[in-house]
Amino acid sequence: MLMTPKEYVDSLRQLRPNVYLFGELVQNRLDNRMIRPSINAMALTYKVAHEPESEDLATTRSLLTAEKVNKFNALYESPEQMVRMVKLQRELGQRAGVCFQRCVGMDGINAVFSTTYEIDQKHGTEYHQRYKEWLKRVQENDICVAGAMTDVKGNRGLAPSQQADPDLFVHIVERSKDGIVIRGAKANITGIANSHEMLIMPTLRMRENDRDYAVSCAVPTDAEGVTLIYSRQSCDTRKFEDGDIDVGNYNFGGQEALTILDNVFVPWDRVFMCGEIDFCTMLVERFAAYHRQSYGGCKAGIADVLIGAVASIADYNGVRQAAHIRDKIAEMIHLAETLHGCGLASAYEGWKTQSGVFQCDTLLANVCKLNVTRFPYELTRLAEDITGGMLVTTPSEKDFRHPVLGALIDKYLKGIAEVPTEVRYRMVSLIHCMCFGLTAPSYRAESMHGAGSPQAQKIMIEREVDMKLRQGLARSIAGIDQREDPLEMSSKGNWRRPTNWDSATWPRGK
Amino acid sequence: MLMTPKEYVDSLRQLRPNVYLFGELVQNRLDNRMIRPSINAMALTYKVAHEPESEDLATTRSLLTAEKVNKFNALYESPEQMVRMVKLQRELGQRAGVCFQRCVGMDGINAVFSTTYEIDQKHGTEYHQRYKEWLKRVQENDICVAGAMTDVKGNRGLAPSQQADPDLFVHIVERSKDGIVIRGAKANITGIANSHEMLIMPTLRMRENDRDYAVSCAVPTDAEGVTLIYSRQSCDTRKFEDGDIDVGNYNFGGQEALTILDNVFVPWDRVFMCGEIDFCTMLVERFAAYHRQSYGGCKAGIADVLIGAVASIADYNGVRQAAHIRDKIAEMIHLAETLHGCGLASAYEGWKTQSGVFQCDTLLANVCKLNVTRFPYELTRLAEDITGGMLVTTPSEKDFRHPVLGALIDKYLKGIAEVPTEVRYRMVSLIHCMCFGLTAPSYRAESMHGAGSPQAQKIMIEREVDMKLRQGLARSIAGIDQREDPLEMSSKGNWRRPTNWDSATWPRGK
Amino acid sequence: MLMTPKEYVDSLRQLRPNVYLFGELVQNRLDNRMIRPSINAMALTYKVAHEPESEDLATTRSLLTAEKVNKFNALYESPEQMVRMVKLQRELGQRAGVCFQRCVGMDGINAVFSTTYEIDQKHGTEYHQRYKEWLKRVQENDICVAGAMTDVKGNRGLAPSQQADPDLFVHIVERSKDGIVIRGAKANITGIANSHEMLIMPTLRMRENDRDYAVSCAVPTDAEGVTLIYSRQSCDTRKFEDGDIDVGNYNFGGQEALTILDNVFVPWDRVFMCGEIDFCTMLVERFAAYHRQSYGGCKAGIADVLIGAVASIADYNGVRQAAHIRDKIAEMIHLAETLHGCGLASAYEGWKTQSGVFQCDTLLANVCKLNVTRFPYELTRLAEDITGGMLVTTPSEKDFRHPVLGALIDKYLKGIAEVPTEVRYRMVSLIHCMCFGLTAPSYRAESMHGAGSPQAQKIMIEREVDMKLRQGLARSIAGIDQREDPLEMSSKGNWRRPTNWDSATWPRGK
Amino acid sequence: MLMTPKEYVDSLRQLRPNVYLFGELVQNRLDNRMIRPSINAMALTYKVAHEPESEDLATTRSLLTAEKVNKFNALYESPEQMVRMVKLQRELGQRAGVCFQRCVGMDGINAVFSTTYEIDQKHGTEYHQRYKEWLKRVQENDICVAGAMTDVKGNRGLAPSQQADPDLFVHIVERSKDGIVIRGAKANITGIANSHEMLIMPTLRMRENDRDYAVSCAVPTDAEGVTLIYSRQSCDTRKFEDGDIDVGNYNFGGQEALTILDNVFVPWDRVFMCGEIDFCTMLVERFAAYHRQSYGGCKAGIADVLIGAVASIADYNGVRQAAHIRDKIAEMIHLAETLHGCGLASAYEGWKTQSGVFQCDTLLANVCKLNVTRFPYELTRLAEDITGGMLVTTPSEKDFRHPVLGALIDKYLKGIAEVPTEVRYRMVSLIHCMCFGLTAPSYRAESMHGAGSPQAQKIMIEREVDMKLRQGLARSIAGIDQREDPLEMSSKGNWRRPTNWDSATWPRGK
Repeated sequence: MLMTPKEYVDSLRQLRPNVYLFGELVQNRLDNRMIRPSINAMALTYKVAHEPESEDLATTRSLLTAEKVNKFNALYESPEQMVRMVKLQRELGQRAGVCFQRCVGMDGINAVFSTTYEIDQKHGTEYHQRYKEWLKRVQENDICVAGAMTDVKGNRGLAPSQQADPDLFVHIVERSKDGIVIRGAKANITGIANSHEMLIMPTLRMRENDRDYAVSCAVPTDAEGVTLIYSRQSCDTRKFEDGDIDVGNYNFGGQEALTILDNVFVPWDRVFMCGEIDFCTMLVERFAAYHRQSYGGCKAGIADVLIGAVASIADYNGVRQAAHIRDKIAEMIHLAETLHGCGLASAYEGWKTQSGVFQCDTLLANVCKLNVTRFPYELTRLAEDITGGMLVTTPSEKDFRHPVLGALIDKYLKGIAEVPTEVRYRMVSLIHCMCFGLTAPSYRAESMHGAGSPQAQKIMIEREVDMKLRQGLARSIAGIDQREDPLEMSSKGNWRRPTNWDSATWPRGK
Repeated sequence: MLMTPKEYVDSLRQLRPNVYLFGELVQNRLDNRMIRPSINAMALTYKVAHEPESEDLATTRSLLTAEKVNKFNALYESPEQMVRMVKLQRELGQRAGVCFQRCVGMDGINAVFSTTYEIDQKHGTEYHQRYKEWLKRVQENDICVAGAMTDVKGNRGLAPSQQADPDLFVHIVERSKDGIVIRGAKANITGIANSHEMLIMPTLRMRENDRDYAVSCAVPTDAEGVTLIYSRQSCDTRKFEDGDIDVGNYNFGGQEALTILDNVFVPWDRVFMCGEIDFCTMLVERFAAYHRQSYGGCKAGIADVLIGAVASIADYNGVRQAAHIRDKIAEMIHLAETLHGCGLASAYEGWKTQSGVFQCDTLLANVCKLNVTRFPYELTRLAEDITGGMLVTTPSEKDFRHPVLGALIDKYLKGIAEVPTEVRYRMVSLIHCMCFGLTAPSYRAESMHGAGSPQAQKIMIEREVDMKLRQGLARSIAGIDQREDPLEMSSKGNWRRPTNWDSATWPRGK
Repeated sequence: MLMTPKEYVDSLRQLRPNVYLFGELVQNRLDNRMIRPSINAMALTYKVAHEPESEDLATTRSLLTAEKVNKFNALYESPEQMVRMVKLQRELGQRAGVCFQRCVGMDGINAVFSTTYEIDQKHGTEYHQRYKEWLKRVQENDICVAGAMTDVKGNRGLAPSQQADPDLFVHIVERSKDGIVIRGAKANITGIANSHEMLIMPTLRMRENDRDYAVSCAVPTDAEGVTLIYSRQSCDTRKFEDGDIDVGNYNFGGQEALTILDNVFVPWDRVFMCGEIDFCTMLVERFAAYHRQSYGGCKAGIADVLIGAVASIADYNGVRQAAHIRDKIAEMIHLAETLHGCGLASAYEGWKTQSGVFQCDTLLANVCKLNVTRFPYELTRLAEDITGGMLVTTPSEKDFRHPVLGALIDKYLKGIAEVPTEVRYRMVSLIHCMCFGLTAPSYRAESMHGAGSPQAQKIMIEREVDMKLRQGLARSIAGIDQREDPLEMSSKGNWRRPTNWDSATWPRGK
Repeated sequence: MLMTPKEYVDSLRQLRPNVYLFGELVQNRLDNRMIRPSINAMALTYKVAHEPESEDLATTRSLLTAEKVNKFNALYESPEQMVRMVKLQRELGQRAGVCFQRCVGMDGINAVFSTTYEIDQKHGTEYHQRYKEWLKRVQENDICVAGAMTDVKGNRGLAPSQQADPDLFVHIVERSKDGIVIRGAKANITGIANSHEMLIMPTLRMRENDRDYAVSCAVPTDAEGVTLIYSRQSCDTRKFEDGDIDVGNYNFGGQEALTILDNVFVPWDRVFMCGEIDFCTMLVERFAAYHRQSYGGCKAGIADVLIGAVASIADYNGVRQAAHIRDKIAEMIHLAETLHGCGLASAYEGWKTQSGVFQCDTLLANVCKLNVTRFPYELTRLAEDITGGMLVTTPSEKDFRHPVLGALIDKYLKGIAEVPTEVRYRMVSLIHCMCFGLTAPSYRAESMHGAGSPQAQKIMIEREVDMKLRQGLARSIAGIDQREDPLEMSSKGNWRRPTNWDSATWPRGK
């Protein structure tokens, strides 16, 4: 059953999560002007599953049930499906202009699938079967799952079990025959208040003393003991103001919340890892790889909006054909496409895990994400350059609607004569929203830290590469080891084919 | 007479400018929570003139009256005085963490001084004498002058007189025996609502048809016909919220306003240019050079605050000694000091105009500013990297003050055990303020567009350089022209000393 | 018939091209120490076709004859084949450490194929059939074809027919019933002296007066009237010195030559374009797209050698584990993989031309190449950083082989005790070769200008993007046009799917 | 006595250093075509002292003898003198287009002066007096002194005394009543074969076990036991070829040599440090600061040559007015002036050491140098972009001089019709020389590693900055510590003036 966006929104009314905003319990998330745009963005992921033109990208047959399911709840059965997702993510980024929040759950769904399979293989546990049952229900009911990985972490220099307060990483405080009780908090959880469930995952490599911290499980967002404290966003209260211009992006928004788990009970059929410290790294790295690839879709799509906006403002200012403006816009396109190109490459080069589900290329996914920690900053810098000083000096919509002031603003903030001032004002407000305002955190800070900070990518990039091969190449060419004789068929010097090239999983479909 | 900060603030009560904010006339700027921080920042420029430790940097003897005057109202009598100003600007940037708004006026005061001198020399006019009288009153009363150059401009591809609406650049609509009447609007005028007067200057090179647009004059900010529409800032309404944390920088702020001049009468003794299109370029370029140098002071000072903030948050997160964190902080310092180094160099290499007032080195001032259009973006990018995802996901101060939620936040958003959560929360809020919030426009977009957009600097850099010399060097070394014989004293090949090196004004003090 | 590398080398002996080097006609290219390494590099493209492990990447069935052919002479029948080529190019870059010269011909072979098809469709000509016959012979004899596009160009601001000397672009000087006579010169032709034939193509968009310049044809490299003047390379004469260390890369090298066509007769069955100015742009852009993608293979492979070399020298210097060294090496990997990722993406996203042959994604190919004009410079900069000052201060191999000096050098240029000095010396020499010496032009200047200079890519990137789509996205989100209603299935605001996504050719093979 | 350049060259004939080149003892350095250009470059430093226009920059009165001396042998008595030197360095860089080699000695002369003063103050030694006597003779005889600091270092992860071979850092092997005997080798010593003496300095911080390695002394370059092994340079043997074009910069060149000290006896009156490990850091850091500042002169001057060359080639190609070419040239100027601006600022902000001699600002000197490790790479990258592919594909001068080939080349390598092909060819050769050839190491690798590698600057930048001040600023503004009350004269919040601003030495001369 694929919910329509309306059904999705209605389904949220059934949930009663403890969401706090500005110190108060939110009684009705759907009518809250600050929260609603984030629900709208999430709703797009339901909408595309019903559109004839998008259906192909947005739905697939379930590997588990053979029913048609939303791709955000599906398992990757081939590299092509990852490619389609990256393209869908770009489309959704283009339509929302901001994070649409559903990728974290999807990436978690896939990572936990393949990891539980391998845990069971090694430890003889039954996590994978349990997980499949849970996932079937998720798919059948088309519910929305938030991925919940990042712990609040306290002192970043200490392991979970070394912290002054043991609760700074989510952990098991009780085990019983019915299930487990967990405590702690997950930070910055994207879209959690718009989701039906959360999929909890550990956040880093664990050691022997951290065994209670090696926990993965599924928890309804309105389970007892769960408290969500809504994150502030830049310019958030503009949404409560009259008018629709100053917000910039009025219909769509992102969402994060501090997610506190205060002695939450989880029955065993929802527990997917429970002390297996030897699999934390696998789970984290697989999730991270998927999510780092995802950014090659959405962040390129958001860039497209920004590119369209600055090209428009250049039109309105009468400078679109100036050589330096054209050069900067071409540079913006170049950066957006480099992001997307690496995301696509990572998807196309995917490989099959033991569980049968495909994983994207780890190295390229990390490369994609490391570019994501840089290029949106240059994109917004160029956008700020092209837009001009008005970017940060617009009057308020109240001024613009004022009978006397409005006429003055209309007269004086006009660009080229052919374009109404309000059009220019709206476009500047959108760019402001993306550079400083409501969606700026989603485009800059989330690009930096989402799916792990740049240093995490650097480490993975270093680790993933076959340095012995590269050193052998250099030694051979330098004549330290045997040089290759180009005429001698049996000689390759010290060169050897990188392992991923003759991998059984490449090329797919063969 | 040097006003104390209190006297300055009181003096503002005497003025009754038409300041509009959110569609309403502001009755009391001083008690308006959104405006007051910008007055505080401006007040610092009065405060430093009274501090024993700063007095040396912040005051000087007037060239006109020999009285002690505030450096922001003074004329540059030597390169050293420019150097001291760059250092004072850095100090004020450090203390306010944001634009303190008084440099535009100062830079205008100096540029109009030397330009009117040369206009009179050529045209036999009396602008310079009038100007000196006006400036004496400014100095004696220690008033605050806003520089008002940037017109609203309409179609950026058309000259003032070619615009569909003739008012898109400020121009003279009437000349009488008593004075002139001007109409138009100046965009993004910094600190205007905190200033007693504005010094109007033309914004670009003019041609024959633009003669009415070549106007410079002084106008009280509360003169009849002047309307100021306050610019929105990112997160501006946080200042109206309870509490002081979420604002980030609670005491200090910047200010811009759209400044509309609707048939404003200006008596002749306040008119300093009236149709001399042949001097618009000189005035614009001299002002721009001063102001581009100024950014080598203040923006380095603001960087110092940001550097201190991220070093602190790294402490609180327990990662200060991580190699990649240290590397990024060192990079931030490097960028800040490069900004400052170029500002200092521009000041030290100043030259004497015909009027006796010193001008900074034009090339180096433009080089300084072009770096300013880039480095603050990298500084904030690195700050966002080091701070972590919490940067854009803090809860609200209301949550933090809530009896139950507050305790949860206190527990879970703690960094290292030794530092209270509130300290970490406050520091993150400050960084948010500088990267996204109230002072971010001052640090990013103003760095980009203030004193002219980067393309303007590129053009000046290209124009200022002696390319013939450089081509001669290359031709000589390449053997196209005569090569230099290193042993032959009379031979230099094609090399000739650049003109600025044997300038009569260098080195100063000889 | 697939030639072995030995057969290829022997086949070169049959050719007698007029190759000039240092003012003298080269009698025996194969034994010339400066030329031979470039032949060796080219020979690798023959060798891989016979290796069991590479055969899969390096050979395919001919679309024309169904015989097994070398991929460098084959037509692209699917995106997968382009992907395999990009990977083969990386492997060859890894093994040669320098340009192996055969891609230009391959990219020309494909571009002329699809373009002649479309010329014939429009003009009713017979170029395509002729071309297929020629190509069959190329494939059957496994000969090596040099692509010859870039004209010498004279004044870059003037069209071919406007030049002071009409010969500055290759053009038809005579047409007869047997064929045409062409005159002019092609600049910087890669691998031409190691090739059996050259495939001549026009270099840019042509206008009416340039009709004689719109010529494409195949010419044997030793045809009457052809003169090749060998290009100098940095440190080229080190190849004539005794010893093998100072060269750096002793076995392999690149090659360019100025190719002069002095009234060369071409029979009609070798003429593939003759005056069709309306197809010059298509031919140039298709060739350029292929070749810009190619660089995402080879330049990443060469980067791998450089990365292996600097990691080794860091080992030898005892600093491999220093945090800043690791960070720089990870950055180098990141850059190399970004190059490769964009090349792969361009290949995977290929589309089918009317002729049935596949073309890579134009936008992504240009994006790939624009990164190639930047990253090798940063790669070599980081390599120079890591290697240390010895990079440019090694003594000569003669010193090293000197009985007394050699002992001193051996003692004093030692790094860590475990590694012989000669090993360190050889590795430094290789890095020198790649940063300054024999292969540096191939890695820096060729990356910059090969397949077109960066400005050409900027222009293509601007042109390829659907800016109307992007402006529509921004207008919709800003509320200028209709906003998308996320709940209303029939509403998409102004968003429309980019044309390439529902292209009939995507996804390939389905 | 100021030697003329001819006298300097003659004086070199008196010296008989053991210089080895290509395994052979050089009998006559002056007539060796590979060595002579480096002597020419050094001779320029003598020439400027006699030119009326340069004398002011190039000479001064000796602090020791009150005689007129060459600035390269003088002590800095004021910041102005450092400023003049930075300007002279730029002039010399402009004229030679390459390193003129005399700065290392000058920077060493000043650093040893102030350090020996402080050693004596602490330890009651007599180094300073001895040193002054030696320096007087240097000045009086106008001899050329090479600075010799960098040891060969072996395993960079180990201290001098921990190396497998104790000789990998220069050390004292014997002490007697007459003097000391030293052994070891200094790497990459600039201009050593063109200098009369070398000034030996330790290369890094020492610990207790390294006491024998803490040695500074002066040694004639032809002292017994000294062996110089000449470093290879890119394209070095082009100097031995006929013709003058392919070398690029025919008259001037750089020079480095491996300097081996095999039991060299040094009498006590030439020993300036002998075991004082507590002063190694001071000596190294002072020398490094001077030398890092120096690069803000010479490397900007060399950039000027490159800028002139590419502007010329753009002229010759007919594209000088293309917007992207102008933009790139303006960027090159911007980079060059940023280098120079930081060098000037470092000099102007100099401070007085206890000895009376001035030291440049350490922080700004390091900032200057860190930019030097980056910008020349971008400058050459842009130069390679603008020049076009011909940069690396010129034929040889032999081809150009060949009667038949020469005519072809003349015809086909012509740019715009007005400029002879040879002019274009020469200019391209010069740019090749600076990007790849003979002077490229001086512009890239020397900019990277000379005066210490970039990591060394990063460390100094981190160390030099007053982080407590910056953290106090941030804490005050964030409201963690007391905020500044802008109206309260006695309140500054947590701000305190940085120590260097009220330094007794600033502003100098007042």
